[in-house]
Amino acid sequence: MLTLCAASLARAQAAPGPTPVPRPGPAVAWDEVASGVWRATVGVPDGVSLLDSVAAPPRHDALRRLPQAAFPLRREEIHAEETDGKVALRIPLAPGEELYGLGLEFRSVRQRGTVKQLHVDHYGGTDNGRTHAPVPFYVSSAGYGVLVDAARYVTVYAGTAVRKDSEHPPPVKDRNTDPTWTSMPLADAVEILVPARGATVYLFAGPTALDAVRRYNLYSGGGVLPPKWGLGFMQRVRTSSTADDVLREVDEFDARGYPLDVIGLEPGWQSAAYPGTFVWDSTRFPDPAGFMRVMTGRGVRVNLWINPYVAPRAPIFDALRPLSGSHTVWTGIVPDFTLPETRRIVLDLFRREHLRLGVSGYKIDEVDGYDRWLWPDHATFPSGLSGEQMRQLYGLTLQRATAAMFRERGVRTWGLVRASNAGAAPLPFVIYDDYYSHPDFITALANSGFIGVLWTPEVRSSKSGEEWLRRMQSVCFSPLAMLNAWADGTKPWSFPEVADQVREVMRLRIRLLPYLYTAFARYHFDGTPPVRAMALVDGFRVVDSAVTTAPNAGGDPYATATRRDVKDQFMVGDDLLVAPMFAGQRSRTVILPAGRWYDFHTGAYAGAGEIITATPGLDRIPLYVRDGAIVPLLAGAPTRVPAAGERIDLEARHYGDAPGRFDLYDDDGVSFDYERGAFSWTPLVVDRDRKGRLRGSVRRPSSDKPFGYRDVRFIMMPTH
Amino acid sequence: MLTLCAASLARAQAAPGPTPVPRPGPAVAWDEVASGVWRATVGVPDGVSLLDSVAAPPRHDALRRLPQAAFPLRREEIHAEETDGKVALRIPLAPGEELYGLGLEFRSVRQRGTVKQLHVDHYGGTDNGRTHAPVPFYVSSAGYGVLVDAARYVTVYAGTAVRKDSEHPPPVKDRNTDPTWTSMPLADAVEILVPARGATVYLFAGPTALDAVRRYNLYSGGGVLPPKWGLGFMQRVRTSSTADDVLREVDEFDARGYPLDVIGLEPGWQSAAYPGTFVWDSTRFPDPAGFMRVMTGRGVRVNLWINPYVAPRAPIFDALRPLSGSHTVWTGIVPDFTLPETRRIVLDLFRREHLRLGVSGYKIDEVDGYDRWLWPDHATFPSGLSGEQMRQLYGLTLQRATAAMFRERGVRTWGLVRASNAGAAPLPFVIYDDYYSHPDFITALANSGFIGVLWTPEVRSSKSGEEWLRRMQSVCFSPLAMLNAWADGTKPWSFPEVADQVREVMRLRIRLLPYLYTAFARYHFDGTPPVRAMALVDGFRVVDSAVTTAPNAGGDPYATATRRDVKDQFMVGDDLLVAPMFAGQRSRTVILPAGRWYDFHTGAYAGAGEIITATPGLDRIPLYVRDGAIVPLLAGAPTRVPAAGERIDLEARHYGDAPGRFDLYDDDGVSFDYERGAFSWTPLVVDRDRKGRLRGSVRRPSSDKPFGYRDVRFIMMPTH
Repeated sequence: MLTLCAASLARAQAAPGPTPVPRPGPAVAWDEVASGVWRATVGVPDGVSLLDSVAAPPRHDALRRLPQAAFPLRREEIHAEETDGKVALRIPLAPGEELYGLGLEFRSVRQRGTVKQLHVDHYGGTDNGRTHAPVPFYVSSAGYGVLVDAARYVTVYAGTAVRKDSEHPPPVKDRNTDPTWTSMPLADAVEILVPARGATVYLFAGPTALDAVRRYNLYSGGGVLPPKWGLGFMQRVRTSSTADDVLREVDEFDARGYPLDVIGLEPGWQSAAYPGTFVWDSTRFPDPAGFMRVMTGRGVRVNLWINPYVAPRAPIFDALRPLSGSHTVWTGIVPDFTLPETRRIVLDLFRREHLRLGVSGYKIDEVDGYDRWLWPDHATFPSGLSGEQMRQLYGLTLQRATAAMFRERGVRTWGLVRASNAGAAPLPFVIYDDYYSHPDFITALANSGFIGVLWTPEVRSSKSGEEWLRRMQSVCFSPLAMLNAWADGTKPWSFPEVADQVREVMRLRIRLLPYLYTAFARYHFDGTPPVRAMALVDGFRVVDSAVTTAPNAGGDPYATATRRDVKDQFMVGDDLLVAPMFAGQRSRTVILPAGRWYDFHTGAYAGAGEIITATPGLDRIPLYVRDGAIVPLLAGAPTRVPAAGERIDLEARHYGDAPGRFDLYDDDGVSFDYERGAFSWTPLVVDRDRKGRLRGSVRRPSSDKPFGYRDVRFIMMPTH
Repeated sequence: MLTLCAASLARAQAAPGPTPVPRPGPAVAWDEVASGVWRATVGVPDGVSLLDSVAAPPRHDALRRLPQAAFPLRREEIHAEETDGKVALRIPLAPGEELYGLGLEFRSVRQRGTVKQLHVDHYGGTDNGRTHAPVPFYVSSAGYGVLVDAARYVTVYAGTAVRKDSEHPPPVKDRNTDPTWTSMPLADAVEILVPARGATVYLFAGPTALDAVRRYNLYSGGGVLPPKWGLGFMQRVRTSSTADDVLREVDEFDARGYPLDVIGLEPGWQSAAYPGTFVWDSTRFPDPAGFMRVMTGRGVRVNLWINPYVAPRAPIFDALRPLSGSHTVWTGIVPDFTLPETRRIVLDLFRREHLRLGVSGYKIDEVDGYDRWLWPDHATFPSGLSGEQMRQLYGLTLQRATAAMFRERGVRTWGLVRASNAGAAPLPFVIYDDYYSHPDFITALANSGFIGVLWTPEVRSSKSGEEWLRRMQSVCFSPLAMLNAWADGTKPWSFPEVADQVREVMRLRIRLLPYLYTAFARYHFDGTPPVRAMALVDGFRVVDSAVTTAPNAGGDPYATATRRDVKDQFMVGDDLLVAPMFAGQRSRTVILPAGRWYDFHTGAYAGAGEIITATPGLDRIPLYVRDGAIVPLLAGAPTRVPAAGERIDLEARHYGDAPGRFDLYDDDGVSFDYERGAFSWTPLVVDRDRKGRLRGSVRRPSSDKPFGYRDVRFIMMPTH
């Protein structure tokens, strides 16, 4: 291949003459590296990759538990070519295959027919590949996944490029006369351009699309199991807050009965920010240790905002300067976290100043973009990585380094980050941003499950009580229920007209802990994403409502047909369908998958494999439960998630008429002892007795297994 | 530099360890290649460049007429570095310098503080470098220009990236407490990344910014001189039109007294399109030669729509197949026009089928994007060029090839194209697109003058008569006054309530031919852009209204300061200021440069070096004329521009109180004889007689020089 390139280059420099167009490169050679996972190396890959940046070993046992699978495509149809100093890959596509993934997109779920350059950035309003987690992984409806493991700006032509020599060329039509002419002729391949001299590619078998996602997550190290408190409620305070302000805020939450598990301190906790020092400000936090002791006594954890751009006045600035990149960001140096020495210097300070006091996590801000703020692509770093490479893996590197710090101490952390990439499933971070479109935030939630990341549609401010409540309802069904009041100082009760309803949904969030925590356990043990798009649900079919408009100069001159893209509803766990409402809506359609579904709030039958209309009223978010499902909730109205060792009553709600079983997961909720077997799976079972009545039973674990529940009360939700 | 790269690469692949960050590369070595133009070569440039694709020799005589100038920057401050297989350039910037250019942008004129990856594409709504003419040229308010001549996706950090070792580091501020904190610390350089192993860079001296633009245009070969008929009115007909339909349309234009110089035939003239055949459709145009004869007899020229994607049923398909790229576009093959054989095959057919019949030009469509339609970046072409390279220069190549065909015959052409790039000034094409935002179309007009391209804010359709008229008013003050009715079949009179006003402004356009044609002559002879932004006008100053908002979570969390960007008014020629009105506006502000300015329509004094408010009424577009300026117009109300050899009366309007002089250019308007001296510059002079009264005089050229005007009548416009 190198010979071919030199010849091409020589031609471009000499007198041009016609030469035959090269074939799309030789077929790629694959090795099975785990059960149902194959890897190929093309050319000479970079010395560092995305998966390398996380370096979590694949969970082979779990992979072996998935159905045995053959190589999912035809090897002879997958090609790679080295051209112009880059690698071009070609992976076949059949008609009717739909593609998902390719980054945390906000405006579309279906990705076939798109072109994206996958580039870490703050999402900018267009699904063009510029986003916080531009993961070069896609999964096909045909039941396989593809990952290009390269820390580069990879361009994916997801079924757009058509080769002249294609064996399945689309039909040629005359646009002048043929009303079936299309501006998107059917392409028979995904083509991928990696701007590097080589790349590592992975293929994940199914048989279903969800299985392919599971294999990708398990190969990445398995999904993260958060600390239980991470699934509670997080309030990020106004950035100018002092310690006393924060304590008063905690008091107010408790006095008003609003759930609160974590307080997030924003930039003002530092003695300077943008660029930062990483040390407490002595005016706003004169006694950090004392402050932290009070917070711990209140049962509220503390999460610290940081960005990695270091100020000259920071204590570690001098030590970091030679370990940082050629360019500054907001006048701060950019530490090269791929170097062990960098990590040692930074984490020593973090342990001493933060962890030792009991800080439980970080919010890693602004490691995504925009281009005008971050370092340029040609920036250089002491490790030898280019600005482009560093851009693609910086978020992963920071997540890994800070998470390791907590693991050393045997405690789980939970935090936020604004950039991530392939391999992130085991990392205890949730992505967030400033984009703030509620509908698009929900689309991102749906998409997160394809690519092994977690996303929160955080709430900050609203124009109306209705909007406020609707956003709070949505965020309470996401991986991180959070109000980010860094700028506005908002509280959950800031809109009095909906203050009660906000508290109600926040309390419902806390009560759902057993269900949510079990879903995350499935993420860890089986690779099943806790939040997932409808496309990954068995029996979910949408009628292709292809809408073709006549070409018109004003709107769409190319008469692009549009197809329904289901992006405004998603699953949490296996059994709960969430269909958020947006401000201004009184009703919405909900697409129910095959099988019978029931209203979570009332138990009433809602429909089966059909499109229904929901008119829930302001106070409720439309939620639907699968027939026979059992949803375990904490009893009562707790305002904190259960602490380690705390035992609490459980309410197990059964929906529908079918029998069911829910394997409830539990462990101590804070440590890594679950990795050594300290966990339980407890079947909650509903079946019919001899008289045909529904009855529930619990098969409690042995006493050496952690199980934080006392009474288990079954409620058979009435179906009408 | 190659040694450094290998070492870096080795480090990235080996155990990482800290190393000192390299300096920003050695200073670049410059050669003066023309008067006030320096060139440097960094690394090993590609075998083909943008200027190569036009290959018009620089106009050295004209360059020497510009003020002699020294190297405009400090050589030791310009650096180049080869890193990661690419070239990074660094060019110093002083505080207060503003930057212009960097492509045909639609939403901003001032470019300092932006990051763009210059990438030929259909403009998509964001000024991110994706546009029809993503020219890697910028001009500084300090009076110099920089061109990176590379057919690559060049990324420009226009004063955003800050080096850690900068000699002029911006101040470090604490965002927690300092209200002057900025999200855009002042950068002291433009940094440019060329994704190739080398690049050729040019520096153009001033002393003014306009002089730098002149040098760039003259080095490109000088600006194009259109045929006179190109500055008339073009009507593009509904794509389904037959020959009879077109002839009826011409009849109707003439019967109604609307100007018409060119008819544009849209895809329907071909026997098939998308992909195309390039031959006449036998049903809609059964007798092309006869049709063309009638059109010629009517004095109306014909321009043919094409895109270059060739259908299997095209007569030249078989010959072109081996001369085309690896991928198809809309199922058509993509001919490699950089190959002489390709041009021979295609142009032989064009000569035979089109030119021989009298066709006068082409509209070259869809050579820009979008990504999902065009060939992918990794496409290969028989010349050896990559898909990326071909994307960047395809428009230039097509323009050059088709223009050469007309030049062979000694006749000028005028056409349209949707992609262009550096070096385009001598090419007889005007850019257009589907974006259709009227205000943004005006911004593009302003920007076109920085980068050596021409742009038309074509009119297609409107929601109201007001909008229709406003758009028609704008387009009549652009390089190509055109109605594109390909889809809607609109006519200038389609909105009866404004039909008269539309005709009036179209007639004004025709009457302005002497003024416009002279402005284009300046483009050719002096490199002065005929349409230019206010930033290029002497004495144009805008108060920096820096607006800083408090950070807020909803709108702009980073409190980006905004500065006034004057993008809604522009100059045509040296003396005419155009300030378009948009639908819904009754008034608008107009910023008048230093000196006294007068209302074009009435002659009334308007203001001097100030911001005024214009309330022109629906019937007029605000137009202002410099004090002492003389604007020559054709007398009467012609509906065609003067034909070669036609002599017509001239009306010379003098504005203001100052004496003035206008050197009126003329030639035969159709041939290239002007290149051999067959042209005239005729001074029109207004001064005061001994009694202080204004009087006009004409110094007619000798009879061997072309001069198409009979009577010259001076009108001294009343100033109040």
